[in-house]
Amino acid sequence: MRHTISVLVENKFGVLARIATLFAARGFNIDSLAVGETENADVSRMTIIVRGDDKILEQVEKQLNKLVDVIKVSDFLEAPHIERDLALIKVKVDKSTRSELLQIADIFRANIVDVSVESVIIEVTGDEDKLSALIKLLAPFGIKEMVRTGVVAIARGK
Amino acid sequence: MRHTISVLVENKFGVLARIATLFAARGFNIDSLAVGETENADVSRMTIIVRGDDKILEQVEKQLNKLVDVIKVSDFLEAPHIERDLALIKVKVDKSTRSELLQIADIFRANIVDVSVESVIIEVTGDEDKLSALIKLLAPFGIKEMVRTGVVAIARGK
Repeated sequence: MRHTISVLVENKFGVLARIATLFAARGFNIDSLAVGETENADVSRMTIIVRGDDKILEQVEKQLNKLVDVIKVSDFLEAPHIERDLALIKVKVDKSTRSELLQIADIFRANIVDVSVESVIIEVTGDEDKLSALIKLLAPFGIKEMVRTGVVAIARGK
Repeated sequence: MRHTISVLVENKFGVLARIATLFAARGFNIDSLAVGETENADVSRMTIIVRGDDKILEQVEKQLNKLVDVIKVSDFLEAPHIERDLALIKVKVDKSTRSELLQIADIFRANIVDVSVESVIIEVTGDEDKLSALIKLLAPFGIKEMVRTGVVAIARGK
């Protein structure tokens, strides 16, 4: 099953390596991982998307909780939450395809952040499904390059 | 100096752990790290922001290039590129502060993605400076929770 795990950690070096090693040792491939600052400069939040056996994952979460620099581990499996991913997509373009491309970007509320003679860069945010849908539409134009942040998640307000 | 490094890797388990360990072994703390899918399902792209000694970082980049699952390492230091970070920020709110909060979100072209009696969740994308500026403005309202993806970068079109 797909799990969205949020890990609050002390912002010290080596923490990321220890956590990544823990997942790798259990044979989990991390689908996406994002590490960013939080409201507290000494603390970072990792959002990890993994797919795999629920029982083994439960053990990994327990092991995570035992690491000195880990403050809190949350699994969003059953909690109402919001997920967002950001993609920057460089798409081939010429005079004949530019306006169609702009229309598609507009429908997805995506922003054009760079334009050159041969390409445009589209910035889009959304959940994985939205991004997949846009990428599928852009593929026929020719995707030259793409970079994604990976998913971050936050619990909805009560 | 602050470096934005983009590492194209085979999407296999253990790669992330090896790369994170390489940086930790050299005493580099990773400011932000994002791992996401690319235009090719077998390949992931990591974007890593680090600060530190340029000479040692050069060595780390050479070592990265030697890892079997690493396809390409790019340092955006002198190349024209675009950086983006995404934040989800849960801010305390009540009747008297809601409209001011919405105005601020509007100025930053941020989206309100969740509203409850006591809080709103704001989604914003931009470079680090833009996000810092917004966070500074939101702090007086009370930031209950924040999660950031970390920075991703893409080279501008030629």
